[in-house]
Amino acid sequence: MVNGRTAACLAVGSELLGESRLDSNSLAITRALGRHGFQVVEKRVVGDDEPAVAAAITDLMGRVDVLIVTGGLGPTADDITREAIARALGRGLDIDPQVEGWIHAAYEARGRTMPEVSRRMARVVQGARILANHKGVAPGLLISVSERLLVALPGVPFEMEDMLEREVEPELARRGGGARRLTRTLLLGGVYESMVEERVCGLYGRFGRDNVTILASSGVVRLVLASGGEPTSAERRLDEMEKAFREVLGSDLAGVDVVSLEQAVLADLEDAGMTLAVAESCTGGLLSARLTDVPGASAVFRGGVVSYSNQAKEDLVGVPHDVL
Amino acid sequence: MVNGRTAACLAVGSELLGESRLDSNSLAITRALGRHGFQVVEKRVVGDDEPAVAAAITDLMGRVDVLIVTGGLGPTADDITREAIARALGRGLDIDPQVEGWIHAAYEARGRTMPEVSRRMARVVQGARILANHKGVAPGLLISVSERLLVALPGVPFEMEDMLEREVEPELARRGGGARRLTRTLLLGGVYESMVEERVCGLYGRFGRDNVTILASSGVVRLVLASGGEPTSAERRLDEMEKAFREVLGSDLAGVDVVSLEQAVLADLEDAGMTLAVAESCTGGLLSARLTDVPGASAVFRGGVVSYSNQAKEDLVGVPHDVL
Repeated sequence: MVNGRTAACLAVGSELLGESRLDSNSLAITRALGRHGFQVVEKRVVGDDEPAVAAAITDLMGRVDVLIVTGGLGPTADDITREAIARALGRGLDIDPQVEGWIHAAYEARGRTMPEVSRRMARVVQGARILANHKGVAPGLLISVSERLLVALPGVPFEMEDMLEREVEPELARRGGGARRLTRTLLLGGVYESMVEERVCGLYGRFGRDNVTILASSGVVRLVLASGGEPTSAERRLDEMEKAFREVLGSDLAGVDVVSLEQAVLADLEDAGMTLAVAESCTGGLLSARLTDVPGASAVFRGGVVSYSNQAKEDLVGVPHDVL
Repeated sequence: MVNGRTAACLAVGSELLGESRLDSNSLAITRALGRHGFQVVEKRVVGDDEPAVAAAITDLMGRVDVLIVTGGLGPTADDITREAIARALGRGLDIDPQVEGWIHAAYEARGRTMPEVSRRMARVVQGARILANHKGVAPGLLISVSERLLVALPGVPFEMEDMLEREVEPELARRGGGARRLTRTLLLGGVYESMVEERVCGLYGRFGRDNVTILASSGVVRLVLASGGEPTSAERRLDEMEKAFREVLGSDLAGVDVVSLEQAVLADLEDAGMTLAVAESCTGGLLSARLTDVPGASAVFRGGVVSYSNQAKEDLVGVPHDVL
């Protein structure tokens, strides 16, 4: 189904399998991968369980070009990502004196002595490139396995993002060979997903099924058009796709690359030099809230009333008593 | 690493592998599983790729007691979860006339004719129990495979949650053998997470660190107290915990097992026999929207004005011109 270079994200941490936290690192990683033409085909979250993490690494490294693992690089006994990588690749783990020096220095800079457990963070998988942590202590690892790439980054988001940008993106750019995947999003109002599918399915053959994604959410349907390859030709291809899709969608198309229906409506009203006020009942202020959420809404939106009780409908909106 | 019954969540959908959306259904599922003694050991997200989804199902069904799959049950060509399950289990897929009738009726109720593509939603894996969708159209599936359980639910959160509660929890209760993990949530307003941590940390020793979770989100902090074992004693333990936590939290406690701060405020006003109206500017209707989102809000909430422009502030709220 996927042509081109593939990638996967593996988040390690039992806390990410609980009732309240999600792995959100994968979003920044997906963006960085996408910029260099790598498409994420799978995401996983596994707990702090060395054999389970090793099995996931083995499985994913057999299927994707780039695997990015986050978390489990800290000093405590449940930080087992280094050991899991060594086990999955059948390689040894050695204490690296340079890394040990960094860790000592990081503790000293905070006026503290390195606890013995923190020495674990200096264990490096044989053959790995060490990625310095400019925002914290635990270093990352970058390992070439045949033509494939395995990267381990810290789980703390700002440490992860810094290391991703400094150390991983240049490597992705080299391996991606300048490829890019661009997208354009068409927003549709007042339609159902199945209606959109029926109208656009005739275009799948021409542009490729994998380059069209239909997403339905609270009152709108989004059509995401994608095109890969060299940037100029990808952009040209998107223009061509947009033109063809506009023809079958007609006036149900509310906007292109707009965030929301309300943004599209406000932009149209502003273009027409009009202003807007609203009176709401059951929606209880939600319409006003969504309109004012659009940056620059004040150029068009004047205000509204929420006439929730019948008395308020009479007093604020002037609805005649016998209509209610 | 894990003793007891295990579970995994598999979210199907290429849109969940993009740059902006996470699978958040897994949180509600993890909570429901936890209530019946099942521990999530892995989460995965896979795109709309039938062989890839089938391979993930095969792998996970070999390792956990319960697998809950979400998404990919809709009418479009990229909704491939039914086919992937059939492939993974080596079973056939038949159009179920009863389900086809439901789907026809759902479209008719909306004054529309069923598009031919929607017939896909009536395909049922052989041997599956059909789970009716009370909030949408696509039915779910519940399949016993030896001692293990495979459940497929829609990806739309409110459809998923309704089906989880109505259809899946009773089955989990049967399989969990009466084990329960009960929780009680204390809602706090006007405090920071770190302040709460400082005030409650003295109670960790007494009730167990793992039984207390602190969650901060948009203006409120929630303290989730948990207790396992036989229901009556778990309930008694929660009463004891609540009493101890109330003592250290004092008047910052806004409510117990309330959904939101606004629900707690409306309940207090109703008890006091008072009514409420609001005037908003920057919040643009959000306050009204959140208040009217509480079931039964109309007993207390009369209405509001959104005076977004300065003119509206003068006209609707009577703010003197020179104050603005």
